[in-house]
Formats: sequence, C-alpha cells, structure tokens
Amino acid sequence: MQKNILFVMYDQLRFDYLSCAGHPLLQTPNFDRVAAKGVRFTRAYVQSPVCGASRMSTYTGRYASSHGAQWNGFPLRVGEMTMGDHLRALGMGCWLIGKTHMKVDAAGMARLGLSPDSVIGARQAECGFDVWCRDDGLWAWGPDGFYDEQRSPYNAYLTSRGYDGENPWADYANAGVDGDEMATGWITAHAGKPANIREEDSETPWLTRQAMAFMDQAQGPWCAHVSYIKPHWPYIVPAPYHAMYGADNVVPPVRDACELDDPNPVYAAFAGNEFAKLYQRDEARETVIPAYMGLIKQCDDQLGVLLDHLAETGRDKDTVIVLTSDHGDYLGDHWLGEKDMFHDPSVKVPLIIYDPAETTGGVTCDALVESIDLAATFIEMAGGTVPDHIVEGRSLVPFLRGETPAWRDFAISEYDYSCQSMRAKLEVSPRDARLFMVVDRRWKFIHAEGGFPPMLFDLDNDPQELRDLGRSGLHDDILALMYDRLGAWGRRMAQRVTVSDGDIMARQGGSEGVGILHWLWDGSEVSQEALSRYRGPVRQRYVDD
Amino acid sequence: MQKNILFVMYDQLRFDYLSCAGHPLLQTPNFDRVAAKGVRFTRAYVQSPVCGASRMSTYTGRYASSHGAQWNGFPLRVGEMTMGDHLRALGMGCWLIGKTHMKVDAAGMARLGLSPDSVIGARQAECGFDVWCRDDGLWAWGPDGFYDEQRSPYNAYLTSRGYDGENPWADYANAGVDGDEMATGWITAHAGKPANIREEDSETPWLTRQAMAFMDQAQGPWCAHVSYIKPHWPYIVPAPYHAMYGADNVVPPVRDACELDDPNPVYAAFAGNEFAKLYQRDEARETVIPAYMGLIKQCDDQLGVLLDHLAETGRDKDTVIVLTSDHGDYLGDHWLGEKDMFHDPSVKVPLIIYDPAETTGGVTCDALVESIDLAATFIEMAGGTVPDHIVEGRSLVPFLRGETPAWRDFAISEYDYSCQSMRAKLEVSPRDARLFMVVDRRWKFIHAEGGFPPMLFDLDNDPQELRDLGRSGLHDDILALMYDRLGAWGRRMAQRVTVSDGDIMARQGGSEGVGILHWLWDGSEVSQEALSRYRGPVRQRYVDD
Repeated sequence: MQKNILFVMYDQLRFDYLSCAGHPLLQTPNFDRVAAKGVRFTRAYVQSPVCGASRMSTYTGRYASSHGAQWNGFPLRVGEMTMGDHLRALGMGCWLIGKTHMKVDAAGMARLGLSPDSVIGARQAECGFDVWCRDDGLWAWGPDGFYDEQRSPYNAYLTSRGYDGENPWADYANAGVDGDEMATGWITAHAGKPANIREEDSETPWLTRQAMAFMDQAQGPWCAHVSYIKPHWPYIVPAPYHAMYGADNVVPPVRDACELDDPNPVYAAFAGNEFAKLYQRDEARETVIPAYMGLIKQCDDQLGVLLDHLAETGRDKDTVIVLTSDHGDYLGDHWLGEKDMFHDPSVKVPLIIYDPAETTGGVTCDALVESIDLAATFIEMAGGTVPDHIVEGRSLVPFLRGETPAWRDFAISEYDYSCQSMRAKLEVSPRDARLFMVVDRRWKFIHAEGGFPPMLFDLDNDPQELRDLGRSGLHDDILALMYDRLGAWGRRMAQRVTVSDGDIMARQGGSEGVGILHWLWDGSEVSQEALSRYRGPVRQRYVDD
Repeated sequence: MQKNILFVMYDQLRFDYLSCAGHPLLQTPNFDRVAAKGVRFTRAYVQSPVCGASRMSTYTGRYASSHGAQWNGFPLRVGEMTMGDHLRALGMGCWLIGKTHMKVDAAGMARLGLSPDSVIGARQAECGFDVWCRDDGLWAWGPDGFYDEQRSPYNAYLTSRGYDGENPWADYANAGVDGDEMATGWITAHAGKPANIREEDSETPWLTRQAMAFMDQAQGPWCAHVSYIKPHWPYIVPAPYHAMYGADNVVPPVRDACELDDPNPVYAAFAGNEFAKLYQRDEARETVIPAYMGLIKQCDDQLGVLLDHLAETGRDKDTVIVLTSDHGDYLGDHWLGEKDMFHDPSVKVPLIIYDPAETTGGVTCDALVESIDLAATFIEMAGGTVPDHIVEGRSLVPFLRGETPAWRDFAISEYDYSCQSMRAKLEVSPRDARLFMVVDRRWKFIHAEGGFPPMLFDLDNDPQELRDLGRSGLHDDILALMYDRLGAWGRRMAQRVTVSDGDIMARQGGSEGVGILHWLWDGSEVSQEALSRYRGPVRQRYVDD
C-alpha cells in the first residue's frame, strides 16, 4: 500500500509544552490525538540546539560535524545528500512547505557549474526538497536591509489580502498596536498584545492551508515537510490566542541559585549573554510565556485542521504523521533564554509518530532518539534500506511496531557558538567555540573545546539538571567513560559516503580474478587460470639470454 | 616572479632507500643533488599507508577520514576540493603526468548531472587535475578482465613502439623471459630477471619524457604532478638495472623474534597475511630487494634526466622541486610485506623540497610533517592563503626559509583494512576495520577499532620499533595522553568547508543591522535606527483597541 509521510516540524517548540507531555496548564488536544494513536518519544534529542544546524542534521540524517553546516547560515556543502535524495530514489516525492533554514553552497554550486534554475541545482539549493512553498519565516529588516534576501511567499500572500507596505510580515503579522503606533513583536514588552492581523491571515493558518493545497493535488507516495515558523520568536500572536493565557499561567522557572554559584565558565558565558539576561527578568517571562503558549495553542488548533482534512480526504488511512521541533526554548530556565545549550528545555524536543499501518498506539518510548533517526525512519517507510554509510541515524520503525530493538547507549548533540558573543567572552578561536553533549540513560555530559572543564548532570538524582558535577571530583569514572564515548564517536566513519559496508563485503576475496597477484613466490599458490594471461611463449625478445 | 612546482611522487618508495637518507649501499646521486640544495624532511608521514587513501589525502590536503576515500578504489566524493581546485583559483595550472589512483564518484557525478566529458566533470573525475597523461600503472589482467578499466597511455606507447599483444605492459614491461616462455613479474621468483623490454621503453623513462614534453610547452605558472608507478610492484626492472644489485647488497631485515612473542592480535593478523608470509622468506627478500633497488636506481637516473632538462631550459631558476612517495614498503621488516601498518618502513616517506627562491639549502628538518602539508605548501607557493577550514595540512614554506615555526605536537595516520583478509581474521565489521596512528617526537601509538588493545613504541629507546609496550602496563600515562590526542583530533572541525574562520570573524556583531532583535525588553537597548523599520504609524487596524 502507498504510504505518505506528513512530516510536521514546529520551530522552537519545547518538549514539555504539550498536554500529552505533561504541561499542567496548556491543553493541546490535537497533539494529544496523535499521541493517543501513535508513539510519543520522551527522550528525543536534536543534534544541535539551533535552527539551521538541527535542521541540516534532520534532513541529512547526519551529525552536525558530519555535514558541516554547524550553525545558522553555514551553507550545506553541495552534494551532501538529504532525505529528499534518498526518498526520491525510492519513488517517494519529498516536498517542502515552509521553513528549512537552508543556506545554499553558492560557491560549491558555481565550482560544479550547477545552476539553481536547473532541477538538480534547485534541489541542491533547497536541501534536497522539491519546493511547494518555502518560507523561512524570519522577514526581519533593518538599516542594512533584510535578514533573509529571499522572496517571502507569506508576504506576497499578505499583500494579496490587502495588507500594505513592503513587509507586512513585520508590520502586521509580527506587530501589535500601541495607540496609533505599530508595536513590534521584537520588543518583548509587546508580547502580550494581539498581533495586528486577522487570525486566518497569520503565519500558522496560512501554512496549514498551503499544506492542504499540496496534499489535495499530490500524486503517489509523498513526504510533505510541513515546517512552521512558530512558536519561534517574535513572540506575538493574534486574537484570541493573545488573551488565552496570562502571567498566572506561567509555570515557575526551573532554576536555582546554586547554578550561578561557582559556575562552569562556559555556562557562565551563556548565562551572561543578552538573551539570558532578558529571561532572567520575571516580567519578560510573564509576558513572553503567555504569548508562547498562545502560539502553541494556535499551532494545535491548526494541527486539528490538518488532521480533519486528512480524515475528510481519506488520507488518514495511508499517511504517517510525524510531529516534532528543531529545538526547544529555555524561557528563563537555568537562567538562560533562547536555546543553544544542552539542558532538556533546549535540546530535547517533542516527537510523536503515528503510522496508521502499525497497531501499536498510545504508548511512550523512552529510548535515546536522535533527530537524525527521522531520515532513516522515512527511508524504511518508503521501502528502502538505510544507507548507513551516509545516514547516521537509525530507523524508529521497530518502536512503532512495539518492538524493543537493541539501541544506542548514548545520544550526541553539538553546538557551535563561534558566531555569538560567548566566543569573544571565552576568548576562544572560532574552531574551538564548540560544545559536545553525550547523554545516556542517567548522565548528561558536556565537553567544551578550548581547555574548559566538563559539565555533568545526574539525571536520576537531579532530573532538573541544577547541579553541575563536572568539577566535583566525585564522578571521574563517569567522566572517563563519557570521554571514551566521545572519542569513539569522534572517530566514527562519517565520510566514507561513496562505499557501503555491503560494497566492501562484496569485494572480499581480493583482486586475484583481475590479476593482482603480488604475494606469489613461484605461482603455485594460485590456480593456473589466475595466471593464464601472464603465461605463454615469448613473442618478441629484448633481453639477452 | 613566476614559480612553478615540479611535484614528483614515487610509489612505494621507502624513506631510507636513498643515499642521502643513509642507505648503506644504494647510491642515488640525483635525489642527493636536490637534497643538497633544499630541505630534506626526516619525519614525513603519509596519512594512510596505502596508495589510494594516501594520495587522496595528499591531493586534498585532508585526513583520510575527512575526505572519506579511505582505501584503494573508494571514490573521492564529488565536490571534495583538491590542490588543483585551490591552485587554479590562484592562477596556477595543476597538471597530472602519471598516477593518481583516483576513483571517480560516478554515482555522485550522476546525481549532480556532471558529465565526465565536461571540463568541470573531467576535473571532478581526475581528482582536480588537468590531465596531460594519466597512467595509474597497474594494468593487471586475469580471468575476470582488467584490474583497471581505463585506457593505458603507456600500453598505447608500447604498441606504437612495436610491442605486440593487447597488454604489452604485462607481457614486456613487467615480465622477463624463462627460456621460450614469458616470466611474469607477478611471480616474485622472477624478480631478478631483466624485464623483456628496451630500457628506454620501460615505465620510468617513458613517464620522464612525458613530463619533459609537458614542461616544454607549459605556460606558467604551473604545478606538474609527475607521478611514477615505480618502484611499486611488480618488482622487475630492465637491464642493466636488474644486475646492479644482488643478494649481497640486501640489508638485513629489521625484525626480532620478540615481535612474534605474544603479539598484539591486530599485528598478528597483519603478520599472518599472504604478503607477510612471502617476505618472511629470505629468498623472497633476497630476490625482491635487488630488483627494488634497481627500480629506485632507474628512478634516480631518470630524475637526473629531469633535472638536467630543467637546467637546459632555464626552468631550474623558477621551479620548486618536490620529491616524495605515497607510502613505503616493509620488505620483510617486522615480519611484514607490502605496506598497510604504521612502522616507519611503511608510514614514513622521503620528502625533499628545493625552492630556488629560498637560500636555505642542504639541511634536514625533523619536524613532524604530514603529507597533507604539501597542498598547503603549494597554495602558499602559488601566492594564496591556506583555506584552513578545508585544507587540514600546514604550509612547509617556513621550514624552507630556515624558520622554526610553532608546529604540531603529533602526526596522524589512518588505515582501513576492511577490504583485506585481516578483517575476517579479526572478526570485525567493515567500519571497525580501522587503525589510527598517533606519533609524537618520542612515542608511536596505534589504536584499533573493535576492542583491541593499543600498540605503543618508544622511539627514543627502541628506534627500530621492535618492542610493543601497549600492553606492558608501564606507560598508562602515555596511552592516556595519546587517547586524549586522538579524541581531540577526532573532534577536529573537518567538514565546515563552506565557512572559513575569517567569514566567522567578519560576522561578529550579530544581526542587529538586519533587524534580528530578539533580546529587547523595551527597545531602549539598541539605537533608534536599529528599530526604525519596525516603527511608524499604524496604517491598517485589525485589532480592537
């Protein structure tokens, strides 16, 4: 039977801001609907807690240091294969509706003579997707121009709906009003205002309609990457969502004074940055979090629209639903804002998968899942065998069948802060501005390049990750184990992408059949046939006897 | 002034089979001529002791696990940059005359729509070189056909000179005669016979003439990679070289019974393979080594021809001469044959560089040099800045100037034996069939994936590497240091090839100018200009006041 994949990604959605994941106040019945039928993974980690790097890992199925696009705006090198390349080879279309954060490797394309106007070039430029609609959703602008030089289909839509100006995304979708003045969502104090836009014209419903339009015309097995910008900042949401939650609905921050007492210097640098300082303020949290919850509530309502549409068109029978995010949001937890580090609010994401062909439903799975596993999962769903010399993730399909496969002992995440203020503060070179997380069932370990001490959290005894044991001297055995794991992972075979293990196994037996015979003394070691082409009468003689 | 680079590579030339390197019996006056004017590097290590992987590292300037072409016949992934790409961008042509062992990534080329008939495609297929003449020099054949499916320019030459048959390389250049029968050089017992060919038509003089023909027409500046197949096996050489050395001229093997007493299981597997068994026989050593010395002597004579030609044409004034090899040859040392492991006879290579523009001459340098340093060196010689986010090697130019730059503390080499018999013997998966060497000024450490113990040699007290201290329990501190180094190296930033450190430094300062302002509470944190595009009167109103 044909199987489609509706691969929905939200941006900056925390793992725990869903009712099915235990949020005490926010109700997300549509996420819960999917979770009730499928498998909810409770320990899904992104390979890097920042949009661009995380997405390039999800799309390629490869760790950030394998594909090299380690931060926002770092181009994904030309030729790097993505889920689109793998799925199309299996006869499944792979379409983009929304955001990827892909930056094209223009220099590499030029070097190889690839034009972005060609089919091959366009796929290279679009991270392997065919584009139904790409909108990365950050149409910021300033004195130096636009942050993103691409054309915004969403802005074009707003214009078509009568919103005026060059950038209605900024003026309407992401701004409220303050008397007669625009009140931009970039100013956090405005987060509680309703966005000055019809709700139906805001980003999440617009993209939902794009997704439905895609599905209504799609032929044949397809994977549709429906990739919402929200609940990513700017934090501002249209009515009625702006008013659904207030300061009273804000859960207390997960933080403790002990975290700032003799902190690891790397953590201290992150906790001292501009985002952290903002979210250390209660007024910021109490303003932003209700808006953030409203944005998620809108996402949940629009997910309901999508699910209903699937059911109405019969596509619910043959469409796998995948719900996830590219990273979380600290929201003041651990005295931090934004994402970027490896506490659970940042590095752990929601992941819910429902395959109507599988009977297991309504269960949770606490295996150590990595976002690179999705590419492998989709390849298996499309009927393929995971090319594990390229795709480093592993298929989650066994879990969807209720099986308990042998699984990895630890998950990895990486972070490159070379473009951020912390690099200068820590006085490291760009290539040393890198962090690595190793997490297993009990311990979370963080290594920083540049000679800093490690961080270590005992998730059994300190599930909120408040006490860094990295310099305690109490767990040197665990630190040694984690360094061993990181070392083994660092040596992983990530770049032998042109030869599979199967190719190698097929080569066993050597080159005897093609006459490579450099271990012979007198020729008696091999069959006469192996040497037959080297034997025969001397036809011309150039040497003295 | 225009500067050319004559980049000569021999194949399987040991570091110590040159008179300037101390060989007690073999005289190589032309190598010595270059060494007497230039710098001879006494600790130059290849990144992998096997043709294909070593060469891909030399050409890309990147470690084997960075470029992924880790063994012979593993295609170099499309888009991987080589010295050709770097040098041409600096206005220096980069030409191939001889062997590369490059295997094209045909699947990757097809995926990107690149035709090998196009200029870009041909360079991708030829490891970034423009091809004056490519001949990989292994025209073996057997019941299953040719080892190398390409066309051999050398065979075409032999045919033009009247040698008959489909494969005169096999029938004449690499065979002697035994009565009325051909005596193939694949049979080691024949190594002492003269090859049944006019000396002038044998491979080394032929390629020398190709190189001179290239230089005679070249418009500068150029880098010419003159890449000889010899003294690589089949070990057979035309007269008079076949008779220059005999069993009396064979130096004793560097080996000791203690090496086979409780050996490391990985070493034991290598010492038990077919090559090792052959070279453990004195008769094999005593037959092969004189032929090997004759092949080197012929290379030296032909180097003299090249040097004289440079002088006669005036090109000696502006042409840098680089002499090196892709790996060594055990020749029975350490009970081993061939290359593949990390004792000095295998992993260390000759490296002599003479730049007529530099005054330092006739000196040796014992810095820990890696073959990836050549790409960086050539880029600097061509007037460029080494793109150290791509090229992992470091320029050797300071050494040529007599400077003593801060330098690496250890060198790395890798070996993938997944396609060899040792893999099955050691019962490891293809991806665990990998070895890593870390060598510093005193210690050589070898790590094997797959759970094996490490090997360790004390080069100060055991310069011949006869006593493996890896399991002695005496040097756990050194082992820990080496594992730390290997771990740090494993995490090196090897794939961020689309963004340089300079690009990152230029990005410092954030995205404020393009309106990414997500750390503001009330806007007072930034200039009014930064927010100017977000401010202004409400032009349309969609929200209730």
